[in-house]
Amino acid sequence: MFERTIWREADGSVGVIDQTRLPHEAVVSTWRSLADAAHGIRAMEVRGAPLIGVAAAHGVALALADRPDSLEDACTTLAATRPTAVNLQWALDRVVDHLRDVAPDDRAGEAWRFAERLADEDAAACRSIGDAGVDLLRAVHEESGRPVEVLTHCNAGALATVEWGTATAPVYVAQDEGIPVHVWVSETRPRNQGSLTAWELAQRDVPHSFVVDNAAGHLLATGQVDLVITGADRVAANGDTANKIGTYLKATAAHDSGVPFHIAAPASTFDTSCSDGRSIPIEERSADEVLLVNERPVAPSTSEARNWAFDVTPARLITSWITDRGVLGHDELGVVLDG
Amino acid sequence: MFERTIWREADGSVGVIDQTRLPHEAVVSTWRSLADAAHGIRAMEVRGAPLIGVAAAHGVALALADRPDSLEDACTTLAATRPTAVNLQWALDRVVDHLRDVAPDDRAGEAWRFAERLADEDAAACRSIGDAGVDLLRAVHEESGRPVEVLTHCNAGALATVEWGTATAPVYVAQDEGIPVHVWVSETRPRNQGSLTAWELAQRDVPHSFVVDNAAGHLLATGQVDLVITGADRVAANGDTANKIGTYLKATAAHDSGVPFHIAAPASTFDTSCSDGRSIPIEERSADEVLLVNERPVAPSTSEARNWAFDVTPARLITSWITDRGVLGHDELGVVLDG
Repeated sequence: MFERTIWREADGSVGVIDQTRLPHEAVVSTWRSLADAAHGIRAMEVRGAPLIGVAAAHGVALALADRPDSLEDACTTLAATRPTAVNLQWALDRVVDHLRDVAPDDRAGEAWRFAERLADEDAAACRSIGDAGVDLLRAVHEESGRPVEVLTHCNAGALATVEWGTATAPVYVAQDEGIPVHVWVSETRPRNQGSLTAWELAQRDVPHSFVVDNAAGHLLATGQVDLVITGADRVAANGDTANKIGTYLKATAAHDSGVPFHIAAPASTFDTSCSDGRSIPIEERSADEVLLVNERPVAPSTSEARNWAFDVTPARLITSWITDRGVLGHDELGVVLDG
Repeated sequence: MFERTIWREADGSVGVIDQTRLPHEAVVSTWRSLADAAHGIRAMEVRGAPLIGVAAAHGVALALADRPDSLEDACTTLAATRPTAVNLQWALDRVVDHLRDVAPDDRAGEAWRFAERLADEDAAACRSIGDAGVDLLRAVHEESGRPVEVLTHCNAGALATVEWGTATAPVYVAQDEGIPVHVWVSETRPRNQGSLTAWELAQRDVPHSFVVDNAAGHLLATGQVDLVITGADRVAANGDTANKIGTYLKATAAHDSGVPFHIAAPASTFDTSCSDGRSIPIEERSADEVLLVNERPVAPSTSEARNWAFDVTPARLITSWITDRGVLGHDELGVVLDG
């Protein structure tokens, strides 16, 4: 059982859970240099927007411990590892900003402190999401007297963050408080991040069941789910929420079945520069992720494929946003956006 | 390019497209005996309720050609190949009923004629579904002037029937009539029947794109689908429709996005003994279909999985039922049910 997904070792190296080996084996990857960190981020040993940012800050610390004058080089190298990851650039900008007025001899030490501060901030934000969301689970349990049935999608779990996760944080806090919970984990084709969610739930002994993405509707329609909680990649000013492809299907079925649908995300995921969901760009990825399963083709060679990574769930289908500033209904969204 | 999925060869054998080899290669399996037919049905060389029934009738003909007194043995052997396939028993009952008053010497010849009659009846019913449904596609094309965008699920195609298919029949008739069509094919985890749909569309040069099941919501919400057409496993008296798991998700998203959602099925799929969807039994299959992808585990060994084969789409989400007796709205369902 790991406390966090990334940590500094006593010998000055950085340890991460190598997520490319999950769920088959839990292996720690040790980064001893900038090159190790850059390789680890590029190879997706770490993934999930918050964790990538924190990992990059640790990469800078490793670089400066080796060569105190290498800040600019380190940032260039790290920024190129996952060019579309917004949090990566955000974290690097914060590191550079923080080290600007630090004397060269103190930079390595300060870079370590700052990397660990970013990790602590992320863990604290996720814990706050858990503390806010657990009230929803407790209310269900107190009314029903049986385990709370939560459906989630993708991995918005501890593995995508430093600790706790976003969608999983209310589940883990509930577990700590003795509220019984059972989680429905959807596979999340094409990249099967449900495997990661199942792995971390198994690590923490949270009862859970794995289902194909297609099964969510049946679960919702037949009363087997008390509430849906997913993460978010970006929340627009009006509450429209972009998240992993397939989230909108779950939201429409939850709405049709009368099951509450919640988004769990820190305030930093809210983007006031997007007025609504239509202005959120949707990344399209390689067709091979769809057409090859374990390197075996699933369609004729003449078949085209499309592969959008995200979809947008309109605010009207969302019951509330579980944030590090509390559980927000439609009327309270502005509290976060203006805060 | 195959005309049908099953046929009698000049030498008295039966040819079928071996669907276990699709979409990787198109291979004909030749059945020369009852044993070949029983093996072929059990091994799922043929699949799809209508086709299994027709295949069983061909198996009886092969048995009687070999041993004219083997009717009872043949039926026992064939019925055991797929014990839960309703159409298999239905076809065998019809064969037995038909041969009851036929002299033993004439039985083999009559069994062949009857098997081919069942095949022709199935092809004709599917063609009628196509003739009825093509009007919906033509109307879209005449209004928009561009290719009609159809989203389907699973394989309710020619491969599940003798010819034409159910959900695909309107597409193939449209193609024959020069109406341009593009089909969105969803993978259909856990058994990936979307691969079969892609294969048969590719065979007939119908433009199509393969997507993961999760992508359907994005397609519907962003105006990339004109209408959804799926098949049905059973339609209850009130119109509630059981079909492949994941159908209900597509129906709720189509409803939310204002896209028409149609069920294509022959009158024989309507079951007046079920008053509504709650009385349709939902088969649950082996968890290994979910937990193993190409024999590789996708979740920790301690993760449980559930695997329902079907879900129920309530009639209120269905625009119309495209049948061999015409396109039926909610008020016209009784026409089929009483017919």
